[in-house]
Amino acid sequence: MSVIKVGICQMIVEDDKEVNINKAEKHIRKAVKEGAELIVLPEMFNCPYENSFFPKFAEEYPNGKTIAFLSDMARENKIYLVGGSIPERDSQGNIYNTSFTFDPNGNMIGKHRKMHLFDIDIPNGITFKESDTLSSGNDITVFDTELGRVGVAICYDIRFPELMRKMVLQGAKMIIIPAAFNMTTGPAHWEMLFRMRALDNQVYMLGCAPARNKHASYTSYGNSIITEPWGNIVERLDESEGVIIQSIDLNRINKIRQELPLLKHRRKDIYN
Amino acid sequence: MSVIKVGICQMIVEDDKEVNINKAEKHIRKAVKEGAELIVLPEMFNCPYENSFFPKFAEEYPNGKTIAFLSDMARENKIYLVGGSIPERDSQGNIYNTSFTFDPNGNMIGKHRKMHLFDIDIPNGITFKESDTLSSGNDITVFDTELGRVGVAICYDIRFPELMRKMVLQGAKMIIIPAAFNMTTGPAHWEMLFRMRALDNQVYMLGCAPARNKHASYTSYGNSIITEPWGNIVERLDESEGVIIQSIDLNRINKIRQELPLLKHRRKDIYN
Repeated sequence: MSVIKVGICQMIVEDDKEVNINKAEKHIRKAVKEGAELIVLPEMFNCPYENSFFPKFAEEYPNGKTIAFLSDMARENKIYLVGGSIPERDSQGNIYNTSFTFDPNGNMIGKHRKMHLFDIDIPNGITFKESDTLSSGNDITVFDTELGRVGVAICYDIRFPELMRKMVLQGAKMIIIPAAFNMTTGPAHWEMLFRMRALDNQVYMLGCAPARNKHASYTSYGNSIITEPWGNIVERLDESEGVIIQSIDLNRINKIRQELPLLKHRRKDIYN
Repeated sequence: MSVIKVGICQMIVEDDKEVNINKAEKHIRKAVKEGAELIVLPEMFNCPYENSFFPKFAEEYPNGKTIAFLSDMARENKIYLVGGSIPERDSQGNIYNTSFTFDPNGNMIGKHRKMHLFDIDIPNGITFKESDTLSSGNDITVFDTELGRVGVAICYDIRFPELMRKMVLQGAKMIIIPAAFNMTTGPAHWEMLFRMRALDNQVYMLGCAPARNKHASYTSYGNSIITEPWGNIVERLDESEGVIIQSIDLNRINKIRQELPLLKHRRKDIYN
């Protein structure tokens, strides 16, 4: 399959899990109606992006209302569903920022725990310390779908070219990034990161952010985006709620890799 | 030393080596007059960027008119001089695209042979195959100056995040890229590459290109540029001849690395 249709759901996240799940369902159904085969939700789509909320909203796989919802949505609508991310609790009580992906049978086929925790402190900008409540994952997440091989990473993970490259060397043709940049790093870096990772690796990059909620303590930049292997933007939202529905041609990856053979020209003899 | 003054010489390159050397001298003297302590010339500043010219213009270190000129200029003017690049012949007859750097005593302190050869073929865009005449270098080039630790790579080398990262992990605070992008890849990627490599690695990037010569078979994009550790452009030329003179504050590197600790957050346990 070469041309596939993807849906990216930029929804407002509030401080009520039930409300968030209902909102996600509304967005997913809209995307399904428009023919999307692979649908993406934002980072922490069921929970405010705030350390005090993560333990309260956390779920332990395979239990939990959000996890069941994602599986049901995928199966009912016969879609691949990259469930943004949610706070996940493991059996030891550690909490992760985790993205679960379900296939059209409702089976979980991908689980990414955010590998790079967002601990930054920019005076007059943004201060946040995920590691106050969260643990970091240790696995690179790449899996097959009938639409193509997919990599998933979360938000701050995109900052690390090493991780993006590893996913591509493992065959990912699309890298999906549920993310919530803020009003400092968003305007400065969001677009450039998505364009450059797509260009360097000659893949499609899909970024899905929460819409901007002016009442939240952490203000999401929004601007959900798709970029392509030559580094151009395919589509981008503003800060409001909305759904991107976009056909993307995975054959373009081969074309660009033939013309500008970056991956072939890598000096593995030197780097490794 | 924290604030240093750099000069970037965007000169037209013609098909006469003597003319090119004289032109370079004029640009260097202008930069010296304005106080530059470290001066950069473009890729292939003494030779048209064309496979047929490389063997004819090649010099073997330490002999050759261009190499002597660079050493003399550095010593006379008490500057660090990153001599763009020239075609270099080794004792076996191989030809490289090589950048020589000289210190204020006229001693050669850095030599980079382009590691990634530019072999691309974009229909209705640009086709070039450096490997028809050139061999590739095998060494990462980082060296100390009294102004700070410097990395040098050439043009297409910037496409490879692995190489840029290696230079930074070896301590480079400024990465200097003599380069000659063209009218296809230049408008599409030049600015983004310099901004993103600076941001990812939280260093200064200096790009020095030939000015656009409409009579040349290969049309340089020009647009010599300096970018800084937050990913912004410090200064940038258009396609015409000109010299950038710019003070840059290397302390900004530490500030940005403290606020957004990307290098500290690298998951070496996973990548290596």
